[in-house]
Amino acid sequence: MASDPADRASAVLEVDLVGVVANWRQLAARVAPADCAAVVKADAYGLGAPQVSAAFAAAGCRRFFVATLDEGIALRSTLPTSCEIAVFNGPVPGSAEEFVFHQLVPVLNEPGQIADWAEIARRHGGLPAMLHVDTGMARLGLSTREFTRLADELSQESATRWRGLISHLACADQPAHPLNDLQLARFALMRRHFAGLPASLAASSGIFLGRKFHFDFVRPGAALYGINPQPDTPNPMRQVVRLKGRILQVREVERGESVGYGAAHVVDHPSRLATVAIGYADGWFRSMSHRGSGRLGGERLPLLGRVSMDLAVFDVSAGDPSLARPGGFIELLDDDYGVDAAAADAGTIGYEILTALGRRCQRIYRGMPNQC
Amino acid sequence: MASDPADRASAVLEVDLVGVVANWRQLAARVAPADCAAVVKADAYGLGAPQVSAAFAAAGCRRFFVATLDEGIALRSTLPTSCEIAVFNGPVPGSAEEFVFHQLVPVLNEPGQIADWAEIARRHGGLPAMLHVDTGMARLGLSTREFTRLADELSQESATRWRGLISHLACADQPAHPLNDLQLARFALMRRHFAGLPASLAASSGIFLGRKFHFDFVRPGAALYGINPQPDTPNPMRQVVRLKGRILQVREVERGESVGYGAAHVVDHPSRLATVAIGYADGWFRSMSHRGSGRLGGERLPLLGRVSMDLAVFDVSAGDPSLARPGGFIELLDDDYGVDAAAADAGTIGYEILTALGRRCQRIYRGMPNQC
Repeated sequence: MASDPADRASAVLEVDLVGVVANWRQLAARVAPADCAAVVKADAYGLGAPQVSAAFAAAGCRRFFVATLDEGIALRSTLPTSCEIAVFNGPVPGSAEEFVFHQLVPVLNEPGQIADWAEIARRHGGLPAMLHVDTGMARLGLSTREFTRLADELSQESATRWRGLISHLACADQPAHPLNDLQLARFALMRRHFAGLPASLAASSGIFLGRKFHFDFVRPGAALYGINPQPDTPNPMRQVVRLKGRILQVREVERGESVGYGAAHVVDHPSRLATVAIGYADGWFRSMSHRGSGRLGGERLPLLGRVSMDLAVFDVSAGDPSLARPGGFIELLDDDYGVDAAAADAGTIGYEILTALGRRCQRIYRGMPNQC
Repeated sequence: MASDPADRASAVLEVDLVGVVANWRQLAARVAPADCAAVVKADAYGLGAPQVSAAFAAAGCRRFFVATLDEGIALRSTLPTSCEIAVFNGPVPGSAEEFVFHQLVPVLNEPGQIADWAEIARRHGGLPAMLHVDTGMARLGLSTREFTRLADELSQESATRWRGLISHLACADQPAHPLNDLQLARFALMRRHFAGLPASLAASSGIFLGRKFHFDFVRPGAALYGINPQPDTPNPMRQVVRLKGRILQVREVERGESVGYGAAHVVDHPSRLATVAIGYADGWFRSMSHRGSGRLGGERLPLLGRVSMDLAVFDVSAGDPSLARPGGFIELLDDDYGVDAAAADAGTIGYEILTALGRRCQRIYRGMPNQC
């Protein structure tokens, strides 16, 4: 009974760890001598934080970022203690001691967090933290007004040992957007108050805005996982995921028959349909209805009708009949049709495609860390 | 350090098991003397299959449906053996013995599955299965042509012990759609070949099409979890989930400042903004950008700009300042703004809202089975 879960799986998400590491190395080389961190929040964008982070650590990455305390706690047990794990959201009231216990570095975003952490740091005889300043997102980080008020005090704060000064770009994927240079100028100004402190402004897209955006370290996430950091130019990153869905049934339908919920698609010629075990509960968005596609033996085939919770139907009339059989697979993401292409069909961005997958999909990994 | 994960959680999904069971009882009473199964696929539509199924079992439910073998294996360990667990997708080639080992009842959808199962059933001296016939979905189940060819043989098959004959409605949420009566007529005709076999056509919406659609048992899913089975009429079901997101930071912004990625929202008056730890990696869809809302102390407040992976920003200018503080919560789903309302804002259906949540959200349960 100990069959391989991948053999019985409905949908399989294959993660190429060699490719993930190659993407990290490419960015690290591009920004050197600046350092290259790795953002592995949201379970490494759905690819599996333990596996992906171990691969980065084996390749030499020493700075990791997650979003929440729970993500940090989970990651701490899988990484060497020489790796720093920073938590973007910082502590919510009452949770600061968890950061200390699990050796996590909070990113402090607002005055209350900063004051609470300073108090705990004094009790512990000094604790690390990063400081987040807002330069144009209006999301997390000290506002300019707050920064101006607190800057002198913060740079002299002795119990909180500052490990980094960070900010985040709002429009880095639009190189011509005027906000980029404005954020750069604001950040450079704020940085003067913290001489010698490692500073970081750029995430994936920011890396491609040029050297002056790199500062002391960069924090890529999306590009590591194959998302194009410069949407209007050829993608320099490797595709690192492949997704395939199991064919459960193949049927012949006549002209005029309807397919799926709402009878929303009516076939206009006799067709061969394959019902595939992938649906929106697997993260294959319902917005793919009538628009998505899959590949069977090199042939790109349209998705018909509405995506349902567990199933989607493809017109395999043009596909190789020997491949269109129950138990076979239709390719849903591959090197030719990557996450950005799927995002365009689903009306979203590659980031959301990745984070939605992997709930029910069986994940398998190619290239474990010691082979990288 | 053993703090309650809910205390440090970013987003909390509260599941009301008393309400879930009340919904099941309401449907069971409506269809009696027909039996009422429970569909708990996709982790009980994101609410947690182990907890929700245990509550149904305690209330007297004895028939459960999941989508995949893996879901069936996971559920088998949490339910009494007196509960039947049927798997909609049936066996993929090579996995049939797993069904036997884990005492799962496959739903057989196509001729190959039926033949393979019959062979294994002969080897085991008889095994249970359900038969799925397609009456208008063109998704899973024997086509009319296949059924006609196989019906006599199937009704006499002695090794496969048929436990049910099922089909599925395509347009049950549109009571006036002509396909409903057509599917009913086709199903009634097919049923004649299987005298005495429990038959089932209706899921949540089908239950509300009237008694003639009920047959021997019904298979609700969505309605159990509060989704309106009749979209154009008042919802007879109880809302059973509440979702809240943690406020991480509150800031004052001036007229003309932009918010979030792409600087896609510019505030047109001085405002107070709250950054909340909920994003599309939590299943709060990016399509909520510029459209969603939340509630703070009774006040409904707009979501501003784009939803990002881990965060969303709300305009709390009109909210109670004593509640708009870091560590507090903004209500995202509640009795007044339920899953269907959220779905309308996100451009999808309540089903997808539910199945997307619960990946990173902390789930807590009110009303455990022994209290139901």
